[in-house]
Amino acid sequence: MKNTLISTIPGKTAIEEAHERIRPYIHRTPVLTCESINRIAGATVFFKCENFQKVGAFKFRGASNAVFSLNDEALIRGVATHSSGNHAQALALAAKKKGIPAYIVMPENASGVKIEAVKGYGAKVIFCKSSLDAREKTLEKVVNDTGATFIHPYDDYRIIAGQATAAKELIEDTAQLDIIVTPVGGGGLLSGTALAAKYFSSGTMVYAGEPMGADDAYRSLQEGKIVPSINPDTIADGLLTSLGEKTFEIIQREVQEIITVDDDEIIAAMKLLWERMKIVVEPSGAVPFAAVLKSRKLFSAKSVGIILSGGNVDLTKLPF
Amino acid sequence: MKNTLISTIPGKTAIEEAHERIRPYIHRTPVLTCESINRIAGATVFFKCENFQKVGAFKFRGASNAVFSLNDEALIRGVATHSSGNHAQALALAAKKKGIPAYIVMPENASGVKIEAVKGYGAKVIFCKSSLDAREKTLEKVVNDTGATFIHPYDDYRIIAGQATAAKELIEDTAQLDIIVTPVGGGGLLSGTALAAKYFSSGTMVYAGEPMGADDAYRSLQEGKIVPSINPDTIADGLLTSLGEKTFEIIQREVQEIITVDDDEIIAAMKLLWERMKIVVEPSGAVPFAAVLKSRKLFSAKSVGIILSGGNVDLTKLPF
Repeated sequence: MKNTLISTIPGKTAIEEAHERIRPYIHRTPVLTCESINRIAGATVFFKCENFQKVGAFKFRGASNAVFSLNDEALIRGVATHSSGNHAQALALAAKKKGIPAYIVMPENASGVKIEAVKGYGAKVIFCKSSLDAREKTLEKVVNDTGATFIHPYDDYRIIAGQATAAKELIEDTAQLDIIVTPVGGGGLLSGTALAAKYFSSGTMVYAGEPMGADDAYRSLQEGKIVPSINPDTIADGLLTSLGEKTFEIIQREVQEIITVDDDEIIAAMKLLWERMKIVVEPSGAVPFAAVLKSRKLFSAKSVGIILSGGNVDLTKLPF
Repeated sequence: MKNTLISTIPGKTAIEEAHERIRPYIHRTPVLTCESINRIAGATVFFKCENFQKVGAFKFRGASNAVFSLNDEALIRGVATHSSGNHAQALALAAKKKGIPAYIVMPENASGVKIEAVKGYGAKVIFCKSSLDAREKTLEKVVNDTGATFIHPYDDYRIIAGQATAAKELIEDTAQLDIIVTPVGGGGLLSGTALAAKYFSSGTMVYAGEPMGADDAYRSLQEGKIVPSINPDTIADGLLTSLGEKTFEIIQREVQEIITVDDDEIIAAMKLLWERMKIVVEPSGAVPFAAVLKSRKLFSAKSVGIILSGGNVDLTKLPF
């Protein structure tokens, strides 16, 4: 018996199957609109509120699809990853829903709140030094010892197909969109969104917003090859990672353009969303809206879908 | 031609008519749920998100119903009120939607943000000293000079019928609720909610949460007569006013109990809503949830609807 591992770029059916697979477990998050935001942006904007998703971010979609795609033999051995961010919580909760073990390698300097959240979902946390090398070696040992399946946070077609379901729902819940905009970090959400638009809403273009302080995806598209993120520095701490091979291939083919924004623009966009829409969005989640505000001409009078990717933010350390 | 002024307690039909009247102008706000909130509360809680309503509060429902109920003759002369809070913005926007003048008497020490918001909706702002006496006298002069119709913020059956539509929608969008909880200030939302529950969901009980520092409604129910709020002091600045005669009569008849909570309990409830649900709720809006967390036994394992009344808060002055 083999895993139903997707070894090629997910097609329309793979995304539909992913959606059916995770539907009972995820929130079908609302799509919100706001007149004053539309006035300010000069466009009609539809916000897909993945900040309301379980664990507070779209990451639960991909993690659920990856976990629920495993065969019985693999399920027993559990899943593993290294992450100190939303993917760690997402994988821990997906494993809990399936009643299987999750092994999360976290740097020993990770925030206490995040460690507690992962443990709260019943995952086993394995600490390591904070270097990427230490994280990868520790993960390798965990996988060898336990036989758990490593679930990469983004460079995995099961993850990409899962993330694609956010845009699929957005498309189902709105009239024809001219453009969909997402943030881009490792590219799981962006590549999934590009595939969903291609299959379910042909004619809808896909753009991304990216922080200037972590603009590896922008530069990768410019140079036609993956340019890794080196010493990224931005308030959008969910977008520090570099593109993967699988996500880059899809993004290069299907994404129109990446718009870079600086931290001041991200903070201003974030504050507007909080004030006008009364929702909590993390800096990374505000990046696509910052891009829309910046490139006014491009989006002018258009019908624009934005995926608000997450809402996990320390309320005692707000940038405004 | 007379105004369609409701001169008795709104019946089922009056609330249904109010809903039809305002439906094209209001947001049908979503009802959100959150597993971790349910776990913490020990109940199944359905949040009616009036913080997402236009002007950021349920007040737009009542103001719209009042304005759209006026006859043509009254419409030409416009509407007037004195308020420095959400009612001022709500009335200004309702008047704008109808293309009629709105005269808003505001104390000269009102916050610049609020004054600008009201002016932004095209209303004429008339300043006065901050005493209640000055506000009432100034309003009287404005009404005499312009012939505008005074729209009271809560002690008006058109307002009460409008506010009732929030609970009506909540009832339509959920399975049978055991209890609905609202905040109480002047009592417009609470009395409207009590009527909606009576007509559209018999068997659903209605409770209210009230700040200890402005517990006039609690004391009024205890003493069987209106006990005015004197020098109220609470972070829940939308709930400082006293009950009116019309709201008190309905509340006395239809509301089960008022639960008082202190400011620490309000702030803790507010923070939980922001952190777990990723929504911006003002202190007044968090009061009913604070009441649910406090009276755990009463709500234990129940199906509870909460009206999150508003989300207008200064993000640079958060209490956490």
